[in-house]
Amino acid sequence: MLVGSKYYQSIWFDESEPSVIRVIDQNRLPFFFEIKELCSVEDIYNAISDLTVRGAPLIGAAAAFGIYLATLEETSLTGHRNLLENAARYLISCRPTAVNLSRSVNYVMDKLKNEAPDDARESALHAALEFCEQEKENCRLIGKQGLPLIEEISKRKQGKPVNILTHCNAGWLACIDYGTATSPVYLAHGSGIPVHVWVDETRPRNQGSRLTAWELGQAGVPYTLITDNAGGHLIQHGMVDLVIVGSDRTTVNGDVANKIGTYLKALAAYDNNIPFYSAFPSSTFDFGISNGLTEIPVEERNPEEVTHVEGLTGGKIEHVRICPDNAGSVNFAFDVTPARLITGLITEKGICNPEEKEIRKMFSDKIN
Amino acid sequence: MLVGSKYYQSIWFDESEPSVIRVIDQNRLPFFFEIKELCSVEDIYNAISDLTVRGAPLIGAAAAFGIYLATLEETSLTGHRNLLENAARYLISCRPTAVNLSRSVNYVMDKLKNEAPDDARESALHAALEFCEQEKENCRLIGKQGLPLIEEISKRKQGKPVNILTHCNAGWLACIDYGTATSPVYLAHGSGIPVHVWVDETRPRNQGSRLTAWELGQAGVPYTLITDNAGGHLIQHGMVDLVIVGSDRTTVNGDVANKIGTYLKALAAYDNNIPFYSAFPSSTFDFGISNGLTEIPVEERNPEEVTHVEGLTGGKIEHVRICPDNAGSVNFAFDVTPARLITGLITEKGICNPEEKEIRKMFSDKIN
Repeated sequence: MLVGSKYYQSIWFDESEPSVIRVIDQNRLPFFFEIKELCSVEDIYNAISDLTVRGAPLIGAAAAFGIYLATLEETSLTGHRNLLENAARYLISCRPTAVNLSRSVNYVMDKLKNEAPDDARESALHAALEFCEQEKENCRLIGKQGLPLIEEISKRKQGKPVNILTHCNAGWLACIDYGTATSPVYLAHGSGIPVHVWVDETRPRNQGSRLTAWELGQAGVPYTLITDNAGGHLIQHGMVDLVIVGSDRTTVNGDVANKIGTYLKALAAYDNNIPFYSAFPSSTFDFGISNGLTEIPVEERNPEEVTHVEGLTGGKIEHVRICPDNAGSVNFAFDVTPARLITGLITEKGICNPEEKEIRKMFSDKIN
Repeated sequence: MLVGSKYYQSIWFDESEPSVIRVIDQNRLPFFFEIKELCSVEDIYNAISDLTVRGAPLIGAAAAFGIYLATLEETSLTGHRNLLENAARYLISCRPTAVNLSRSVNYVMDKLKNEAPDDARESALHAALEFCEQEKENCRLIGKQGLPLIEEISKRKQGKPVNILTHCNAGWLACIDYGTATSPVYLAHGSGIPVHVWVDETRPRNQGSRLTAWELGQAGVPYTLITDNAGGHLIQHGMVDLVIVGSDRTTVNGDVANKIGTYLKALAAYDNNIPFYSAFPSSTFDFGISNGLTEIPVEERNPEEVTHVEGLTGGKIEHVRICPDNAGSVNFAFDVTPARLITGLITEKGICNPEEKEIRKMFSDKIN
C-alpha cells in the first residue's frame, strides 16, 4: 500500500541487512509513522505482545520471521534444534486467540526438519518469505472474491455510496498488504465504485480510530469515525449496507473469533437483515474446533488498557485515566460471533456459507 | 447519597441564598468533586448543554429550577410573561431526546398561569422543589419495585453475587437521588444481597467509567469497568444475570430511547435469554409516541467527543486525540431499543410489560 507516494508492506525483509526484520510501528500510528527494526526472537515476541504488530495474518508473518531470526542465533547442531523448538513454543505462546500464529510457526518449522544450521537459515528465510507472499496473495484474492458483494449493492443503489461498517483493523496493517475486510473495499474504491466506511473506534486499543482511519485516509477512501456504541443505531436506520470484519480464528462450522465487540455488530446486522461478512485467509481456519464459544481461548489483556486511553496531546502520545483511580476492570480482547449470525465467509478461495459441510468441501485440501 | 460522609443530592436549593441553584459538576468527576452555582436561565441552559448536569430526571429538575430563576429576572407584568415563555422554550430546546425536559418545564409553567411576578416566584420555587421531591420519591420507589428481581436471582444463585450490567449512568447523579437503574442495586446492596455491577465505559462521554464507577465506589458497591464492546462476551458466557439501564424517553408501546449503545446490549441479552430491564420514572414516558425508531428525535452532538477522549493525566483533565487529525466523525447520543427486546419497564408504579395496553392501563392517570 502507498504511504504518501511510497509503497510499504506492514512487515518486510531487506537482503542488504539479513539480520533485521522491519515493521511499521503500529503503536505510534496515526500520530507518527515510524519503522521499527526487529533483530531477535525476543524482539519479535515483544512486538507481537505489545501490539507493535497485530492482526492475525501479520502476527503469523512476524512469527515466521521470528523462526528465521532464531536460526541466526545458534550454530551448534544440538543447540540449534533446542533453540528452534524453544523459539517456536515461545512465539506461539505470545497471544492465544489468533490461530495464524501457530500455523505460520509450524509451517516454517516443518520446512526445517532435520536441517543443519547453515541450511536452516536459508530454508527458514525462504519459508517465511513464502508464507508472507502467500498471505499477500490470499488477501489480494479476498478482495477479488468480495468485490462482487459491493458491486451488487452499488448497482442496487444506482451509484450512491455503498456504506460499509467495519470493526477494529482488518486492513493492510493487520496483514502484509491489502487487508482482509478492507481488501474488497480498496478494490471497489480503485475501480471507481463509490464507497464509504463507518470506522468503529474499537476500544480499548482503538485500532479502528487509529489504524483503520489512518490507512483508509492514506488510500483516499471516504470514512467516518464512530464510537463502538453507534453501529446499532446506524444499522437500524439504513445507514449501513454491508458489514465486513476480519477474523482471528474461524472454527470448522463457521464461528468467528474477532476483536471484542464484533458479536454486538453481528447481532445488530442480523436484527436488521443487513449482510454481515467475515473476511480472512484460510490460514485463519482452525479445522479442529467446532464450537467457537467454548473452545477458542479468549485472550485477557492488561486491565490498564480499559482504565486508560492513549492519544495525542501537545504533540506527544499520552495515557489519560478515564475512571476513578482505584477502579477494577477486565479486558477480554476477543469475542465469538456464532455462525448463525454470519452471512458468509470471504476467503481467497471464494465466499463460503458458515456451515461445516461447505467449509470442509471448499477447504478439503487444507484439512489434514 | 453519601459522598464521603456527607449527604448530597445532584441538585439542590438553599433557602439562605435564594437566587442560586447548586449542582455537582459532573464534568469534573471522578477526578474532582466540585459544586457549581447556577444563577440564571442562561447558567441552567449551559449546564444542561455542556453536561455539567445530565440524565433525564436531573435535566428535568434543572430546567424546573431554570423557570424559577427566570421568575427572578423581570418584574414588569408584560415583560415577566414574555420572559417566562421565552425561558421555557429556550430550556426545552437545549436537548431534544429526553422528554423529562419539556415535562418539567411545562409542569412549572402550568403552575404559573396568570400569576403576577411576585406570586410567580414563590409558585415556581414551590413547583420546582415539588417536582424534585416527586422525582426523588419515584426513584426510591423504582428501587423498591426492582428489588425483587435481584432478590429472586440471588436466591437462585444461593447467595453468589448477582451480576448486573448497566450502560451509561442512570445513577443518583442522573437523578436527584437513588438513581433509576441503580436504585434497585443500592437497595439490594443496602439489604445485604451480594451484587456486582459491570460498568460500561459509555463512549464518547464515558458516563459509565467516570460517573457510574464513581458513585458505585462511593456507595461501596462492587463493580468492574468494561469497554462498551465487552458486554456481549460477558452475556454470552453467563457472567451477567440481569441488565438494567435507564431511559431518556419511553414510547407508549414500550420502545426505549437511551444512551447510544443500549440497543446493542439489549440484543445480546435477548440472544442469550438474559432479562433486560429499563428503569425510569413515569415522567420519562412520552404517551404521544408509539414508534421510537421513527418518532424520537436523536440528538447529534459535537463530533469532537468522538475524535477525542477526556481523562486525567499529570493531575489535570486533558483531551487526547485518538485518530488522524483530519478524521471526520458523527456523534449520535442515543439509540432506540425496540420494546420486543425488553423484558420489563421498572417504574415507580410497578414493573410493566413493554406493551401499549399494559402501559396505558398502569399509567392511565398520567395520560391526558
